[in-house]
Amino acid sequence: MKLYERLAKDIEDQISQGVFRRGERIPSVRQTSQHRQISITTVLHAYLLLESKGLIESRPQSGYFVRLPASAARENELRTSKPIAVSAQVDVSRLVLSTLRSIGSGEAVPLGSPYPDPKLFPSDKISRYGSAIVRRKSQWGVADELPPGNPELIRQIARRYLENGEPVDPNEIVVTVGATEAINLCLQAVAKPGDTVAVESPTYYAMLHAIERMGMRAIEVATNPGEGIDLGALAAILAKQRIAACMVMPNFQNPLGFQMPDENKRELVELLARHGVPVIESDVYNELYFGEAHPRSLKSFDTEGLVLHCASFSKSLTSAYRIGWAIAGRFHEQVEKLKFLNTLTTPSIPQLAIAEYLKNDGYEHHLRRVRKVFAQQASLMTATVKRFFPEGTRTSHPMGGYVLWVELPPSVDSMRLYQLALDNGITVGPGYMFSATDSYRNFIRLNYSYTWSPGIEAALITLGKLVAACMR
Amino acid sequence: MKLYERLAKDIEDQISQGVFRRGERIPSVRQTSQHRQISITTVLHAYLLLESKGLIESRPQSGYFVRLPASAARENELRTSKPIAVSAQVDVSRLVLSTLRSIGSGEAVPLGSPYPDPKLFPSDKISRYGSAIVRRKSQWGVADELPPGNPELIRQIARRYLENGEPVDPNEIVVTVGATEAINLCLQAVAKPGDTVAVESPTYYAMLHAIERMGMRAIEVATNPGEGIDLGALAAILAKQRIAACMVMPNFQNPLGFQMPDENKRELVELLARHGVPVIESDVYNELYFGEAHPRSLKSFDTEGLVLHCASFSKSLTSAYRIGWAIAGRFHEQVEKLKFLNTLTTPSIPQLAIAEYLKNDGYEHHLRRVRKVFAQQASLMTATVKRFFPEGTRTSHPMGGYVLWVELPPSVDSMRLYQLALDNGITVGPGYMFSATDSYRNFIRLNYSYTWSPGIEAALITLGKLVAACMR
Repeated sequence: MKLYERLAKDIEDQISQGVFRRGERIPSVRQTSQHRQISITTVLHAYLLLESKGLIESRPQSGYFVRLPASAARENELRTSKPIAVSAQVDVSRLVLSTLRSIGSGEAVPLGSPYPDPKLFPSDKISRYGSAIVRRKSQWGVADELPPGNPELIRQIARRYLENGEPVDPNEIVVTVGATEAINLCLQAVAKPGDTVAVESPTYYAMLHAIERMGMRAIEVATNPGEGIDLGALAAILAKQRIAACMVMPNFQNPLGFQMPDENKRELVELLARHGVPVIESDVYNELYFGEAHPRSLKSFDTEGLVLHCASFSKSLTSAYRIGWAIAGRFHEQVEKLKFLNTLTTPSIPQLAIAEYLKNDGYEHHLRRVRKVFAQQASLMTATVKRFFPEGTRTSHPMGGYVLWVELPPSVDSMRLYQLALDNGITVGPGYMFSATDSYRNFIRLNYSYTWSPGIEAALITLGKLVAACMR
Repeated sequence: MKLYERLAKDIEDQISQGVFRRGERIPSVRQTSQHRQISITTVLHAYLLLESKGLIESRPQSGYFVRLPASAARENELRTSKPIAVSAQVDVSRLVLSTLRSIGSGEAVPLGSPYPDPKLFPSDKISRYGSAIVRRKSQWGVADELPPGNPELIRQIARRYLENGEPVDPNEIVVTVGATEAINLCLQAVAKPGDTVAVESPTYYAMLHAIERMGMRAIEVATNPGEGIDLGALAAILAKQRIAACMVMPNFQNPLGFQMPDENKRELVELLARHGVPVIESDVYNELYFGEAHPRSLKSFDTEGLVLHCASFSKSLTSAYRIGWAIAGRFHEQVEKLKFLNTLTTPSIPQLAIAEYLKNDGYEHHLRRVRKVFAQQASLMTATVKRFFPEGTRTSHPMGGYVLWVELPPSVDSMRLYQLALDNGITVGPGYMFSATDSYRNFIRLNYSYTWSPGIEAALITLGKLVAACMR
């Protein structure tokens, strides 16, 4: 436990013991620093952490106070989305591509990046395996890696599922070029152009891209920021119209960060099975949980073979290698064939290097470290946003992953903010990327995977000022 | 020049000088071997080479004779295909995938392989570049390689086009996961499900796969085995019905091996432009020519931006890295966006390793060697097939690339032959793969890229016997 965590724990204990009572002022940052002989920064981090846990709050010019009962603080909470239930043609990819380009090209603070901080990943180790493999095996035919993919990698992926308590049939795994290809292949396997596909609102844009690419229509379903897709709203849509497929991220959804409760997962799978509707789940963040246990996938509730499960190593191990996979239930053969049609094979070396890493190295150890870092930084960023963004700002409560969803005051246009932020050397993910219907014009997505630093804190403070400037 | 080539040249000179006249018997293999003090194998190779050039022929139990005038030998020539001009729904991928699997898995003689002999390729060098890159640069974000792809690789590809006398705009190049993805993206950019696409007959199956994947229909156009798609037949189809696109391989088509004459290329591009029909060319064999000069692409005749040019390094440099590209003319932006939607990015390391190789190493030197080997082996395999396959067998005359197209007597079913051959440890490419309409049931494709050896010769002799056994 780090110093600031220990301090936060002390104060939390004191609050629970009644040393400080609700509404009471706690010692100022400076006082505590002097009293405990620790740096201002450490105390500030501890207070931000407590703030993000809802235990204390800062009041301008007054200092920190033990927080009021939760019910009085609801105004800071995100509400369940209420998208208009019409299916929309999709064209968000141009915005996303140009956003990613501006994020990728410059020296800007990468708050808008969709990728995890590469410094946290064992790239060196995987690279060394890659080097050894290319030295050892200088000749390949494409035939070695024909779909479903490299057998050793498939074995290692299956082993990982087993370790996580969710055994899968290795014969169902098809290796793909990232989860992006997996999602595309799965969607093509279950639906055709013109079909309507139900998605969460807001939606991870790769889902919208897949729908766009295939000339399908998206219907955005109300989604609770803490529990995921609204099952009642989905049931109502299913009763009214034909839905070809449903696409969701049950664990640490991008951008909302929720983990669907197991009961909701079971109900969702059963509801869709009753209507014979396949569900495509992207579970790319499943290794990045903040809770005690590995979250369950929809796949683990599937008895009908109607869940098409997509995942990858891009968020948890290496984003440069572009290795994902699909486990497509009764659509397995079709997905395997479509993989062959789409890109023939997935490149060999990345497959072999990752297989070797999984076989030999501390994947679990690496993940434990990353989970802890992300959980801490989620708290820090949440607290910092709450402190420095204008009144009326609301944030998600990520239960895993590395993105924070921020609702800004209604008058703020996130594209304008995006542009202003870029001019100030900061990137953000504008809310427009997460819907085909412009439902999130005053929302942004922030990435908290990058090591917490004065630079990131300063960027968030600047961002708070820019948000204020965007308010009409 | 190797010994057998020198011998062949001597005999060719003697024939042209009238030392041996048409219909005359030349010295037997044994006589020549003793007379010149060279091995039987070397003489046999020389004779096979001469035979493949049409200068001599073998007569059972009689020996080798200077050949009759060409007109008398027409019965050995392939004829222009006459496919039935109806558009067909396509489903050949299952056969191709299972064929490739059986080719890839075993120890069988790889006559059915679509891939070049990996031993001929500078895999070690490229691997070393790959290793150095992963050591040097251990951290990547995906953003580095967003479409259109790695800038240095794109620069090197553009440089190569310039060296080949066909300058292209680097800004038009989009890097893809092999030519397979390039073809898919291009087709999706120009046509939609239900559309009809004109293809050669026989057709390279990746074209049929792309059409199948998109739910389009293929119309197979008569194709001359020496000159490519029949422009009159195509014009007749264009006059009658709406064609969304045309897909061809102008250089060393797989499986026919022809190089379209420049005049035909120009006419094809103009004919399609008059109808406003885009043409997708796969030019993956363009570096593997047997003639004097690099063949021109359709792209080089394009003034309207209607040619979508696809190529890759898989046939000429490394098939394991899966690096291809598209140059899509007026459809460039659409293709770039579809690339982003389909697989987000192409893996970094393969792109960087190939860029490094192209920058530093003897690509041209490597290609000169490979071209020579393939040209020689084309002759050897052609001659061996002519010698050991039953009467009624016809072969293509490849002008580049590494596959030979063989028409067997009409009663032979190539799937039965494929199975029999596999039982004998030999693979062949059944003709069924090259058409959506079973037009090539008595054809096979043979790969001559593998270093000529007694094992390959023996396999061809066995194959000849199996063909005979398949004749009813």
